[in-house]
Amino acid sequence: MHNNKKVALIIGAGDATGGAIARRFAREGYVACVTRRSADKLQPLVDSIRAEGGEAHGFASDARREEAVQALFEEIERDIGPVEVLVFNIGANVPCSILEETARKYFKIWEMACFSGFLCAREAALRMVGRERGTILFTGATAGLRGAAGFAAFAGAKHGIRALAQSMARELGPRNLHVAHVVVDGAIDTDFIRENFPEKYATKDQDGILDPEHIADNYWFLHSQPRDAWTFELDLRPWSERW
Amino acid sequence: MHNNKKVALIIGAGDATGGAIARRFAREGYVACVTRRSADKLQPLVDSIRAEGGEAHGFASDARREEAVQALFEEIERDIGPVEVLVFNIGANVPCSILEETARKYFKIWEMACFSGFLCAREAALRMVGRERGTILFTGATAGLRGAAGFAAFAGAKHGIRALAQSMARELGPRNLHVAHVVVDGAIDTDFIRENFPEKYATKDQDGILDPEHIADNYWFLHSQPRDAWTFELDLRPWSERW
Amino acid sequence: MHNNKKVALIIGAGDATGGAIARRFAREGYVACVTRRSADKLQPLVDSIRAEGGEAHGFASDARREEAVQALFEEIERDIGPVEVLVFNIGANVPCSILEETARKYFKIWEMACFSGFLCAREAALRMVGRERGTILFTGATAGLRGAAGFAAFAGAKHGIRALAQSMARELGPRNLHVAHVVVDGAIDTDFIRENFPEKYATKDQDGILDPEHIADNYWFLHSQPRDAWTFELDLRPWSERW
Amino acid sequence: MHNNKKVALIIGAGDATGGAIARRFAREGYVACVTRRSADKLQPLVDSIRAEGGEAHGFASDARREEAVQALFEEIERDIGPVEVLVFNIGANVPCSILEETARKYFKIWEMACFSGFLCAREAALRMVGRERGTILFTGATAGLRGAAGFAAFAGAKHGIRALAQSMARELGPRNLHVAHVVVDGAIDTDFIRENFPEKYATKDQDGILDPEHIADNYWFLHSQPRDAWTFELDLRPWSERW
Repeated sequence: MHNNKKVALIIGAGDATGGAIARRFAREGYVACVTRRSADKLQPLVDSIRAEGGEAHGFASDARREEAVQALFEEIERDIGPVEVLVFNIGANVPCSILEETARKYFKIWEMACFSGFLCAREAALRMVGRERGTILFTGATAGLRGAAGFAAFAGAKHGIRALAQSMARELGPRNLHVAHVVVDGAIDTDFIRENFPEKYATKDQDGILDPEHIADNYWFLHSQPRDAWTFELDLRPWSERW
Repeated sequence: MHNNKKVALIIGAGDATGGAIARRFAREGYVACVTRRSADKLQPLVDSIRAEGGEAHGFASDARREEAVQALFEEIERDIGPVEVLVFNIGANVPCSILEETARKYFKIWEMACFSGFLCAREAALRMVGRERGTILFTGATAGLRGAAGFAAFAGAKHGIRALAQSMARELGPRNLHVAHVVVDGAIDTDFIRENFPEKYATKDQDGILDPEHIADNYWFLHSQPRDAWTFELDLRPWSERW
Repeated sequence: MHNNKKVALIIGAGDATGGAIARRFAREGYVACVTRRSADKLQPLVDSIRAEGGEAHGFASDARREEAVQALFEEIERDIGPVEVLVFNIGANVPCSILEETARKYFKIWEMACFSGFLCAREAALRMVGRERGTILFTGATAGLRGAAGFAAFAGAKHGIRALAQSMARELGPRNLHVAHVVVDGAIDTDFIRENFPEKYATKDQDGILDPEHIADNYWFLHSQPRDAWTFELDLRPWSERW
Repeated sequence: MHNNKKVALIIGAGDATGGAIARRFAREGYVACVTRRSADKLQPLVDSIRAEGGEAHGFASDARREEAVQALFEEIERDIGPVEVLVFNIGANVPCSILEETARKYFKIWEMACFSGFLCAREAALRMVGRERGTILFTGATAGLRGAAGFAAFAGAKHGIRALAQSMARELGPRNLHVAHVVVDGAIDTDFIRENFPEKYATKDQDGILDPEHIADNYWFLHSQPRDAWTFELDLRPWSERW
């Protein structure tokens, strides 16, 4: 049976960061379960993990829908194994002046980057507390620490996810669940940055943008910490970044 | 005509704090427009302001509905006068373990305490930037600064409102709008505290709970600050409070 | 006798801010006791307060010397009246690269902007706790909240003074002492700014720099707060300031 | 010659944490240079590193004296090798009511826990910027983030060291120096805790106190981070700690 399989579930594995985290945990022996809204786009990631000898499964799942999230956890825990690690990695960095922000977009950004984090983390916590073990990691941003002109919606969602992470860490730490929040402060080596911020992307050869593999190392490190010395929060930024 | 009337609009005037703020601005010559979901409960507040010689109007308005908020602003600015001051004062302090939090409640708390703040503040800002003047004040809480066990939903909403306030302050300060956030840290002299926390309420005669009138003085003070010395954030707590 | 006289003691009254605070408290009926290292430079301030009908006394006093601070408090409380309000207002904003910072200067900045604050606040607290009343106000800066390139020494001192203020507020609030910290974030209307930052100073007619009188209003407001609603910290900056 | 030797210099290696950090870096091939005020107490640490096959040197050095610190760096870089890693690990957690704090003790705590950090970090930075490489790590505490009743002096020093760390990180990051600050929040497995807080110490078998070896792993991890993803700050606490 699959009893000894341990699952690392990465919600929002469509970007470079989520993919790198999935690969990292797969290399360490975890079954990488990766989700995004449309499953077909996950296939290259799943294939690349399998090509390395790892085990991976892709799930089309809308993290904003409670029933979908519950069904996802039920399916994984029934068919594959217990979720030992949850990584919530959905972002929604869409800047906009408060004067032009629509109610629909403000809501969508929160729903995607915060509410779905609540849904996933709660489902994970419900199962993990029963087993008295588990790790829940959130991808955060500087916008989770302070607001900025043009970032009311994104900052709101990211503040919300940080409040969730901190509240869960304080409640669930004493129940042996490690909850942590990673503040990514800088551009990441992604297609999006290459296409939209070519000058920024050009600093890549001087390590001016974050390598997703290196971000993933930090997630693994956090998960590996023995429980007498757990980190709740760390920040990550390129050496050359102004902050 | 009503051209020289200035409106202070208090969203969420159903509690003691909102009521005291409304009375304070009315005493200073502002037309107090006060809202909550059901208008009849506002009548005592409106009557008490009028009895003091002030002008006040009550509005049943659901701050969570975009059209309702837009209609509210349109009606007030058309029939009464320009909104010079917006106070967003809706709270939703409903503690709950993350393990028992429902999606519906998590959403409702955010919708009430954060999303409606966005809707109201955006409508105010859209009008105020055209006039190049105005004040927007948010009632915050310690939960807006850090998460805590049992407070994932409330902290999420309050973090969101603080992110909104800070983002707006940074964007709109240079457009001559004063946006500020008041961190109320302690029990307020309300029916709710008297009924649910009688021991806390008993400290009232030693000034151990916040007097809504004194909270209101701080809102007025913030609004009165000349623009070379604006405060974004201040905290309020009783002398005896542990923090 | 002088029993009904109340003293507001302003340490570091040599600059525009300290002077304005002294004048403000004198207008409210306090005896303004003002200090700086050389007394003769205080005479114009003392004279201006007296010309307004207030009472003021200047003291040459080195706030970095324990015996001098103790002697100052003893003299004032013996000859004039109890210190009801202490304002610590010594700054030392001397930016320098960490690579060029000397040990002597690093120490001097701390001694002036932090250690002397400890000495004065402790003497005040020792007397105030016996009377179970009093206000202690610290002039802080953004550098008290975060470090910055070129500001290791100044940020260190200002972080230290904020730690002092917060520790004292938490310890002495429950003993009825109001301790607060004002974060001044922006250029103040002073000779120093006029001479060294003329472009900044030129924004004065658009209220782009802080008016010391307006800063003083906030100190008075903090002191006036009833004890059920005390503020520990507020920030002050011009509307046009980027932050 | 010693050209290919890399030195990890640990200032304040007299406690369990400093010792564990020294051992960790020695295991990774660094020459561990360890200091405290009296060298003889370092001998067991030096011996234990050598017994493991590592290289270590003990130095009696008073980190509060500029000339002593300069002489220490000169001797190490001349006789052993370039300081690649500096760890500043001197604490001074001596709680005291502000009403009983002496000027001498307030000063001593700052001198020990903050000023000596400045002296050491500046010497390290001066050499590292020339080589365009190096890591500077500070042991911080929760008292570096907020003041507390009875902790004015300790919080002041720890706030100061954090301000130093953050100012240096912002100035020297773009010069390829990695500066980071570790917030240790909880009791560490030391003789001090065993003797003074036996109930706390008794939680050791449930991992309720921090293992110095695990703290050391985090220092090594920080030093190992590639420069496109540097952490400035992380916190460490036992799973069961209330915070």
